[in-house]
Amino acid sequence: MITVYGFSSSGNCHKLRLLLEQLGRRLEKDYRWIEVDSSAGETRTPEYLTRNPNGKVPVLELADGRVLAESNAILCYLAEDSPYLPSDSWQRAQALSWMFFEQYSHEPYIAVARFICGWTPADSPRRADLPKLRERGHQALAVMERHLSSQPWFTGGDYGVADIALFAYTDVAGDGGFDLGEYPAIRDWLARVRRTPGFVAMQAPAAAARALINHSK
Amino acid sequence: MITVYGFSSSGNCHKLRLLLEQLGRRLEKDYRWIEVDSSAGETRTPEYLTRNPNGKVPVLELADGRVLAESNAILCYLAEDSPYLPSDSWQRAQALSWMFFEQYSHEPYIAVARFICGWTPADSPRRADLPKLRERGHQALAVMERHLSSQPWFTGGDYGVADIALFAYTDVAGDGGFDLGEYPAIRDWLARVRRTPGFVAMQAPAAAARALINHSK
Repeated sequence: MITVYGFSSSGNCHKLRLLLEQLGRRLEKDYRWIEVDSSAGETRTPEYLTRNPNGKVPVLELADGRVLAESNAILCYLAEDSPYLPSDSWQRAQALSWMFFEQYSHEPYIAVARFICGWTPADSPRRADLPKLRERGHQALAVMERHLSSQPWFTGGDYGVADIALFAYTDVAGDGGFDLGEYPAIRDWLARVRRTPGFVAMQAPAAAARALINHSK
Repeated sequence: MITVYGFSSSGNCHKLRLLLEQLGRRLEKDYRWIEVDSSAGETRTPEYLTRNPNGKVPVLELADGRVLAESNAILCYLAEDSPYLPSDSWQRAQALSWMFFEQYSHEPYIAVARFICGWTPADSPRRADLPKLRERGHQALAVMERHLSSQPWFTGGDYGVADIALFAYTDVAGDGGFDLGEYPAIRDWLARVRRTPGFVAMQAPAAAARALINHSK
């Protein structure tokens, strides 16, 4: 059985659960999930660092102990030979392009703003970064809105890995203070993703994080 | 003929030139290079934004006008069916993992420190970010050093796309104030990459950038 080391409130980790469920793979039957609370330093223990020296979740571990890090690389690996990864090389390259966009131009602003709102103290000096993070996050959302104004998905012609990668933190962008009101095409796409077969929502943040998120609004 | 829109002093852009040359594809015969100076705002013109709404170089344009953004997605596309992209799915996933590592945990610190040193004024307020960028960049270098202490390459068992992606800014890390003296395995790997068939070095920064880099040391 394969094992995912992940933090259930992390979009990067939820990507894997969403794809695995959509591939028809079931928790405890086809995969194990070991909860690692990155917000509590559990990715920085000596034991965890042997698994991923970069100290991040998620990590995929095969039955023979081999490990793979980086959420979007894991998505591509798990989706191979499935409809969620295009077989056409140009379409696959476009999906990859959106996944690199997600990790470089989207996640560092939209996910990080959410992390600061929910998982740092109300008086954290990091909160001073929020206006800049929101400005850059809105630039990423504008790029997505433009694409979705003429095409239904990010993974070539069909729903797949790039949609999963971009859905993860866009769906909870509000937690970081992003209002999606100005992005009708994004809101329609989020709704389409939620209607895909086997869709599972991300677990809500724990009460303490929820309270901090509400306090940040 | 394919066209690369790129800035010659950018590691992200040089990745494509290095791979194209190593694939035996020649400038003006097999590909065109259109210089776009991102440091002078040329990626933010209305015309450029129609090509890449995210306003970044490099972009690959096919003969029929279709475009592909994101340096590492372009590397994967160009390397398909060549020895530079592993045919084994696990090894290809590992290469992708390192390429996502490069864009998330390496480039935002090592490339951005270099950009600030060479392409912002000597009194730029962004220079206050350098200590933090260097701290995070050294964390990425430590992860690379650990990997290279037991394996010769990042692309599975052989040199390939992940090595090209990580070489680009590691080789010029000194421009951003990084001393590679503590990383013997990285220095050996850089030397191995330089000896690969068809290797071409990145163009040196223009005189003004060079002077600012020297001034930053």
